[in-house]
Amino acid sequence: MPNPTPKSWLPSANTPHCDFPLQNLPYCAFRTEGMHPHIGIGIGDSILDLNKLSRTGLFRKLGWDIRSACRSNTLNSLIELGTGPASLLRETLTHLLSTSAMPAQVDKVKPTLRPIEGAVFCKPVSIGDYSDFYASIDHATNVGKLFRPDEPLLPNYKYVPIGYHGRASSIRLSGEPIIRPSGQIKNRSSEAPEFCPTAQMDYELEVAAYVRGGRWIKINEAERYLFGISLLNDWSARDIQSWEYQPLGPFLGKSFATTISPWVVPIEALAPYRVPLASRPTGDPTPLPYLTTTEPSAIDLHLEVFLTTQSMRGASLPPHQLSTANLRDLYWSFPQLIAHHTSNGCNLRPGDLLASGTISGPTEGTKGSLLEITQRGTTPLTLPNGETRTFLEDGDEIIFQGHCERPGLPRIGLGDCRGTVTVKKSL
Amino acid sequence: MPNPTPKSWLPSANTPHCDFPLQNLPYCAFRTEGMHPHIGIGIGDSILDLNKLSRTGLFRKLGWDIRSACRSNTLNSLIELGTGPASLLRETLTHLLSTSAMPAQVDKVKPTLRPIEGAVFCKPVSIGDYSDFYASIDHATNVGKLFRPDEPLLPNYKYVPIGYHGRASSIRLSGEPIIRPSGQIKNRSSEAPEFCPTAQMDYELEVAAYVRGGRWIKINEAERYLFGISLLNDWSARDIQSWEYQPLGPFLGKSFATTISPWVVPIEALAPYRVPLASRPTGDPTPLPYLTTTEPSAIDLHLEVFLTTQSMRGASLPPHQLSTANLRDLYWSFPQLIAHHTSNGCNLRPGDLLASGTISGPTEGTKGSLLEITQRGTTPLTLPNGETRTFLEDGDEIIFQGHCERPGLPRIGLGDCRGTVTVKKSL
Repeated sequence: MPNPTPKSWLPSANTPHCDFPLQNLPYCAFRTEGMHPHIGIGIGDSILDLNKLSRTGLFRKLGWDIRSACRSNTLNSLIELGTGPASLLRETLTHLLSTSAMPAQVDKVKPTLRPIEGAVFCKPVSIGDYSDFYASIDHATNVGKLFRPDEPLLPNYKYVPIGYHGRASSIRLSGEPIIRPSGQIKNRSSEAPEFCPTAQMDYELEVAAYVRGGRWIKINEAERYLFGISLLNDWSARDIQSWEYQPLGPFLGKSFATTISPWVVPIEALAPYRVPLASRPTGDPTPLPYLTTTEPSAIDLHLEVFLTTQSMRGASLPPHQLSTANLRDLYWSFPQLIAHHTSNGCNLRPGDLLASGTISGPTEGTKGSLLEITQRGTTPLTLPNGETRTFLEDGDEIIFQGHCERPGLPRIGLGDCRGTVTVKKSL
Repeated sequence: MPNPTPKSWLPSANTPHCDFPLQNLPYCAFRTEGMHPHIGIGIGDSILDLNKLSRTGLFRKLGWDIRSACRSNTLNSLIELGTGPASLLRETLTHLLSTSAMPAQVDKVKPTLRPIEGAVFCKPVSIGDYSDFYASIDHATNVGKLFRPDEPLLPNYKYVPIGYHGRASSIRLSGEPIIRPSGQIKNRSSEAPEFCPTAQMDYELEVAAYVRGGRWIKINEAERYLFGISLLNDWSARDIQSWEYQPLGPFLGKSFATTISPWVVPIEALAPYRVPLASRPTGDPTPLPYLTTTEPSAIDLHLEVFLTTQSMRGASLPPHQLSTANLRDLYWSFPQLIAHHTSNGCNLRPGDLLASGTISGPTEGTKGSLLEITQRGTTPLTLPNGETRTFLEDGDEIIFQGHCERPGLPRIGLGDCRGTVTVKKSL
């Protein structure tokens, strides 16, 4: 009988709070001394360089297509190969990094490892199109209450997975500074808008899925179009957004920057944490047939948002937790979002990104944006050091973390998604 | 004194109604017998193969960067080089194709020409992001009247160049069939939506600009970020759109397909047709300073929309003109759209596409969509053969054409932008 939770020969992968045990193996891309980034996978405190490993002879039994994908600068080629090759590679890597690997194999793998600490990450995927959804009913309700107290949820919400096209060019990697945008802002008291820096800089806690290519994808096949997930911060300038968004939706209030975490956790690593979608409250309509699935399509993923201000960092105070949430609370699952997105014939390309929209929960402390937490800035939040916030100030860093955990199973972590608000003149 | 309108040694380029005289030289990409598309330029009835021409020795004085860009499969490399190299290439091509070219040069150019007839075009540019605006105030007013008779134009319209992110993956080339999309449609009489093919298939007459890369682009510098223009059909499923679009804007009602014409007319070819923006009506607010320019930034471009139905084609009837319009009637110019788009720090990449939004005019016969022409389907349109239309039916082909013309100057045409509505089952 095989060991249900095999260990790695790399000790750091077996420590209890490690985000990257043998069961995770998240993908990334990182800068090397050569001209081009390499792709790799996270294991314990290290990155395994897939480009280097593909040249050791250990991938001989894998096809040339997989070896070639491992030498690409992004994950797109691997995503394009489909589920079979990606599984085969994962199996091979799991074996090579486990205690059942042969000593000769371990000797070949070791020189392809490098520490995560000090690594300079690159965008793991070249993202053709980025679509952002609105799949958390608690978020939609919280926001709706602020703008339409008598009709917080619009009549289409429970039928249509609402979404919009995001801006792919301004997707930034975790750690890149987020420059406070300027834009047209109209205060209620003035007749005309003025062009000035946003006074309502906000974050949105999201999870995003990298997908395979396809169109007219049936709901029962949608699962295999999911490649992996990352954390995503959909930075938002609320004042710019509220003046511009009618009638065509958010545009410059969002397009200045979107941050993604560097690690892509393979959908296979999340298998033990798949759960049925939260059941719809009595009275809610059943999804239309093209969105109905009986498979467990949600993910039990615990999420946390932290803030550190410049003063907090100066005083060496730890990050302050602003909220928690769980991905399983979404009203629409990723397979539903994929089926919906392609139902009109729209083609997804390998590596396209689909984001959940802000993830809020039904209980106190689970609001995924400052808009919700401070009630559009009317109820300031007080930090442990006495500072207050309505929206983000310059120097504020927002950190997202996420992980799956269950007794008897190893923890699967997503790594950090970070961004610090800066002013343009400092560039 | 140089000849103000020099001629080409290629006779077809000098005929009065030719879209592609020596003064146009629009770019395209086309399939060759080899594996990769080549880029080329249109002259008279021919395409000049830039890849082949770059190998004749005639480009010796141009830099290696220009020669290399001419051997690329798309225009992106040339766009990325900036205005200087693009002008230099244009000057060289103008000379080589003019009657002042030396016989030895002409002998080298001739073998790089091939007929336009029978050419299979490819997408001329790899489009990273596609943004669509709403820059025609007449269109915004026409549509607004249908949905909000008492407030056709929203309060932000005259201040903000309204736009949204479009879908880049589903941009199709002229001539590709447009498959009627299905989606959620909710009729007023029923409580719940159903999933079915759109019954309100529509087109939108637009012009799109390919741009160079940049961010925080000042209005007075925006002009040099324009590379060239094409025609664009923003196909729209009105019933899908009207149910889904609140609160985040159009999504699946648009993302099934967008058609672009194969030719990219260089912005330099349009110089003689640049005119000041239409003056704002008395009482309209002055644009904010970041959108104010004194340069002539509109383009006097005449546009036409034609329809042929299956029966019309069967009876060999000519296409029926549905409307005309002029690009100069836009409320916002392309330089304003560029300055606005990047004002928040959003980065444009070389080859990104910015579309005008539906172009309608202030007079009868200048409505750029069936939504406007048939008043949301309530006033059917009668065609010369007796057929009627509220929205498009299967087999209907929509053709856009556009050209600049002025006495004493050669006509600069954009070529056709075509698409025929088809049903999915026929695939």
